[in-house]
Amino acid sequence: MRLRNKPWAKPLIAANPELIVTDPLPLKGKWQSRFSQSAPLYLEIGMGKGNFIIEQARNHPENNYLGMEVQTTIAAIVLKKLLVQPLPNLQLIVADGRLLTEFFTENEVTGIYLNFSDPWPKKKQAKRRLTYHTFLAQYRQVLVENGQIEFKTDNQGLFEFSLKSMNNFGMHFAGVWLDLHHSEENEHNVLTEYEAKFSQKGQPIYKVTANF
Amino acid sequence: MRLRNKPWAKPLIAANPELIVTDPLPLKGKWQSRFSQSAPLYLEIGMGKGNFIIEQARNHPENNYLGMEVQTTIAAIVLKKLLVQPLPNLQLIVADGRLLTEFFTENEVTGIYLNFSDPWPKKKQAKRRLTYHTFLAQYRQVLVENGQIEFKTDNQGLFEFSLKSMNNFGMHFAGVWLDLHHSEENEHNVLTEYEAKFSQKGQPIYKVTANF
Ligand SMILES: C[S@@+](CC[C@H](N)C(=O)[O-])C[C@H]1O[C@@H](n2cnc3c(N)ncnc32)[C@H](O)[C@@H]1O
Ligand SMILES: C[S@@+](CC[C@H](N)C(=O)[O-])C[C@H]1O[C@@H](n2cnc3c(N)ncnc32)[C@H](O)[C@@H]1O
Repeated sequence: MRLRNKPWAKPLIAANPELIVTDPLPLKGKWQSRFSQSAPLYLEIGMGKGNFIIEQARNHPENNYLGMEVQTTIAAIVLKKLLVQPLPNLQLIVADGRLLTEFFTENEVTGIYLNFSDPWPKKKQAKRRLTYHTFLAQYRQVLVENGQIEFKTDNQGLFEFSLKSMNNFGMHFAGVWLDLHHSEENEHNVLTEYEAKFSQKGQPIYKVTANF
Repeated sequence: MRLRNKPWAKPLIAANPELIVTDPLPLKGKWQSRFSQSAPLYLEIGMGKGNFIIEQARNHPENNYLGMEVQTTIAAIVLKKLLVQPLPNLQLIVADGRLLTEFFTENEVTGIYLNFSDPWPKKKQAKRRLTYHTFLAQYRQVLVENGQIEFKTDNQGLFEFSLKSMNNFGMHFAGVWLDLHHSEENEHNVLTEYEAKFSQKGQPIYKVTANF
């Protein structure tokens, strides 16, 4: 998803520094200070238009949530939603998830969500996939002991790659779903925008949850 | 697949002791003596009517193959095929794969094939699935260092279970295919009878190769 930059996006973000972070570096080790409660911190990398992280935050007031997105305009769209329906346990970040270890210290994050991450289908693009081993190493570094990755995608090639990559990295699978929307163990599933779109077309949705 | 016992099966097997083994216990540690050459030994557990193991043996004269099947009548059907087209590097066994460590000694087997194993779909039947951890432990015991399991199935639930089970056992995935017949890396695929049947119906075929 690439959106044309909207002129209102940057001013709106600049006007709401208490909801959205554009310079995450100084917050390394201090993310809890952004919330009214101290609670386990869950991060989504590439939140897109934010349906998932907003609903997770609403369903789980006992946790704190961070929605990260590299595209300014898309992050601003999520910010608009938050201004309409405030959620004290959700903060937004405009930043590149590939720099995670610069933004978070060890044990600062309890779980990471990757939803419909860009597939980078060509072999020589493999290094950019968010489940490439270099990124797994970063996730492990910022996650608590036994921290979890939750990964959903409609992309068969990316899912095959990710299963291998996580397995070869020594991660332990907690759950594997090869057709999530026709599975019994699916009660708490929260749809992302891409997920709604692809599953309407009848494509299977893949999911894996894995621990370090 | 359960076939009615055929009256000709047992006599045919008894008449061909040089091709088919009904008492594998005394051969533990001595399987190479059944072949004209000493070579890496590959075992299929639950070969069914034998298409797969016969074609593998024909394609790879440099290896030795064992086709194991618990149902006497089905093993006798494979024996019939072998009598028509002899293969010096293929031997048959009528036995239960769940007793593997009684039949093989450490490092005796180079690779194990599990093709369309019975799914045992109910939760309380999980212990009977041939990828349950107790069986993985047996496979590891009889396989060479770094030995490989190759597993194919059309059954989504069994494949999800098997990925988790192999991963949690510490096995390393070499390859994962979520739709084998529409994959590029599929040149050397040899069809089993079940595979031919299910893929004709348009169902995806799953495959994983994993090493201990
Ligand atoms: C295919 S969209 C999926 C959006 C949403 N998660 C969903 O499932 O509907 C991928 C999103 O991830 C964002 N993204 C890609 N790489 C990223 C990175 N390194 N850091 C942060 N966001 C990223 C993209 O800008 C895009 O919005
Ligand atoms: C579903 S059929 C698949 C046959 C063949 N592999 C194919 O793909 O067409 C499973 C076969 O495994 C055999 N089998 C099941 N459990 C077994 C065991 N514990 N040891 C040996 N054979 C077994 C069954 O008798 C049956 O022939």
